[in-house]
Amino acid sequence: MKRIGIADTTFARYDMTHAAVNELQSLSAGFKIIRYTVPGIKDLPVACKKLFDEHACDIVMALGMPGPKPIDKQCAHEASTGLIYTQLLCNKHIIEVFVYEDEACNNKELVQLADQRTREHAQNVIDLLFHPENLTKHAGCGLREGFEDAGPVQ
Amino acid sequence: MKRIGIADTTFARYDMTHAAVNELQSLSAGFKIIRYTVPGIKDLPVACKKLFDEHACDIVMALGMPGPKPIDKQCAHEASTGLIYTQLLCNKHIIEVFVYEDEACNNKELVQLADQRTREHAQNVIDLLFHPENLTKHAGCGLREGFEDAGPVQ
Amino acid sequence: MKRIGIADTTFARYDMTHAAVNELQSLSAGFKIIRYTVPGIKDLPVACKKLFDEHACDIVMALGMPGPKPIDKQCAHEASTGLIYTQLLCNKHIIEVFVYEDEACNNKELVQLADQRTREHAQNVIDLLFHPENLTKHAGCGLREGFEDAGPVQ
Amino acid sequence: MKRIGIADTTFARYDMTHAAVNELQSLSAGFKIIRYTVPGIKDLPVACKKLFDEHACDIVMALGMPGPKPIDKQCAHEASTGLIYTQLLCNKHIIEVFVYEDEACNNKELVQLADQRTREHAQNVIDLLFHPENLTKHAGCGLREGFEDAGPVQ
Amino acid sequence: MKRIGIADTTFARYDMTHAAVNELQSLSAGFKIIRYTVPGIKDLPVACKKLFDEHACDIVMALGMPGPKPIDKQCAHEASTGLIYTQLLCNKHIIEVFVYEDEACNNKELVQLADQRTREHAQNVIDLLFHPENLTKHAGCGLREGFEDAGPVQ
Repeated sequence: MKRIGIADTTFARYDMTHAAVNELQSLSAGFKIIRYTVPGIKDLPVACKKLFDEHACDIVMALGMPGPKPIDKQCAHEASTGLIYTQLLCNKHIIEVFVYEDEACNNKELVQLADQRTREHAQNVIDLLFHPENLTKHAGCGLREGFEDAGPVQ
Repeated sequence: MKRIGIADTTFARYDMTHAAVNELQSLSAGFKIIRYTVPGIKDLPVACKKLFDEHACDIVMALGMPGPKPIDKQCAHEASTGLIYTQLLCNKHIIEVFVYEDEACNNKELVQLADQRTREHAQNVIDLLFHPENLTKHAGCGLREGFEDAGPVQ
Repeated sequence: MKRIGIADTTFARYDMTHAAVNELQSLSAGFKIIRYTVPGIKDLPVACKKLFDEHACDIVMALGMPGPKPIDKQCAHEASTGLIYTQLLCNKHIIEVFVYEDEACNNKELVQLADQRTREHAQNVIDLLFHPENLTKHAGCGLREGFEDAGPVQ
Repeated sequence: MKRIGIADTTFARYDMTHAAVNELQSLSAGFKIIRYTVPGIKDLPVACKKLFDEHACDIVMALGMPGPKPIDKQCAHEASTGLIYTQLLCNKHIIEVFVYEDEACNNKELVQLADQRTREHAQNVIDLLFHPENLTKHAGCGLREGFEDAGPVQ
Repeated sequence: MKRIGIADTTFARYDMTHAAVNELQSLSAGFKIIRYTVPGIKDLPVACKKLFDEHACDIVMALGMPGPKPIDKQCAHEASTGLIYTQLLCNKHIIEVFVYEDEACNNKELVQLADQRTREHAQNVIDLLFHPENLTKHAGCGLREGFEDAGPVQ
């Protein structure tokens, strides 16, 4: 049975994991979810590494909500760099789901964005694990998780 | 027989892989193409690593189209850093073909740019694999993939 | 018995370690604290690595106070990148507690912030070591160490 | 006997090594100094690595003077990142002593700053090697190498 | 016999390798030059790694001419970071010779700069390989490759 890790934070202002688990379970079965919560996004890389190394996960979702200040964006940059490096060390995918507070105009939109982006990336996780051909079918199609798709140019 | 990996994304708004495959096959034979699609450019480094480690590729093209926003450029920077690191881990070339949406003035130009840059880098891939002397012949010549060559200074 | 490392600096303008030790000991028992002082924040990554490799620590707090100038922020960025990398090399958590001088309006606020942030992260350390379920209980709750919590959106 | 490496550059505009050696020898004995000169600060990381791996140094001082232009600051950032990474690979301290040309108002101040910062970091080197308790005694005291100490807040 | 690698690009607008080879041969003998051409500067790190690992080079010159746009500077930053990392993996020097198009006022100056900087770094390569004491003699002297030396402060 496949093992899907979910790493999330107490810093985030929305329970993205609830959305992730709900969506994953609605899309497929035959996998186990392991959750690992850390304080902030810069703690996510080693959490993901532990999910791979100590919890035998096959893929991990890294869920975070960086704040709106410049220092928050720098933290997100550092976290993302670490997440990419973790993937290379473990030869496994981490699907980063970061929602920036200033991507939304108000709280209602922020909740919708966080929920929707997490769900659409949950679909990506299922596809990477079980149906990679689904991703190839949409290559170059301008998909956008959480917002309306940009669609192909032409 | 040589194995050429192509990693592409569902985020891109043009099917760069179509252009890559078409050009590669028009230029040479005696190789097999393995395609791997991921959601976005930050997923490309580990996809390329898997193409080397799990699919025995000799070289990989990493195709992506970063969006026009500052966060998109930061993602591209993180992806590029990861792609360079992947090459060092695997001792093999990854030819990064990134097309920024704001490099073109309109959709028509964007399509032309994405198509042409991909094709010219497909030529680089063939040269690196089979005819490295072709690259040396053009060293210092100011070549530009996708745009008109800058040419040598003088 | 668990071993908690504390790496701090002579550059910092407040004895964050005093706050950390005081809080850790008020929260729990059954652990030993090992302290390692370096000149500045860029010396923290290898100090943490030594606390793991040479002092057998299970987790480390990295305490620092970057100055207000652009070069100080760059140093903090470099230090943070190194701390993330150290965690990946050692498969252990480093809780980074950085307090930026310009986060506070005056010296009194700066002292309060440094003290409070350190104490709240000491709680995170105890939770990661002994009660990870406490963190999961607060996932998505918008916690903020040192400042008032942002709270969940909705 | 301990071995202290000193890596310096031909780019620097002041003989920081002279100050380092003079100060080290005035502070302590029982160590050997090994010097390694490279063209610029981006050559320092591998020079330090060689001082550890090929010259068996226990600690290294990396001395450099970045120029005042944006590209110089980027070089310093790249060098610092490499120096942190080198320390993690070797599990040993590198004390980076960088003096930025635009930290001083005129040449006289620049010389004084380069000299003084190098000497105060030489003290740090001696403390890290022989008297780590001296550093711990000054943790949180707001020390500043080369300039007047900021001192503790309160 | 020592082996000097030269990695260059088709993107560059001047044949820096010609200058490098000419200068190296005028300065010394008893070495073999191995050349490796890649499309752009971001391909240089793995090219240098291959020159070390597959061609047994003792030192490598990495020659490139980044364009004048912001994206070109970001590419140069990524390439430089990769070159530093490559050196640490291989424990050998890579002398990076990058000439930015906007360092010169016109084409004639650009050619002179590219030629002169390459030649002066060729001297550094020879010194690192055969006469390291020459570098130490000029430590702190404010040398500048390609431009007039800044000279020591005082």
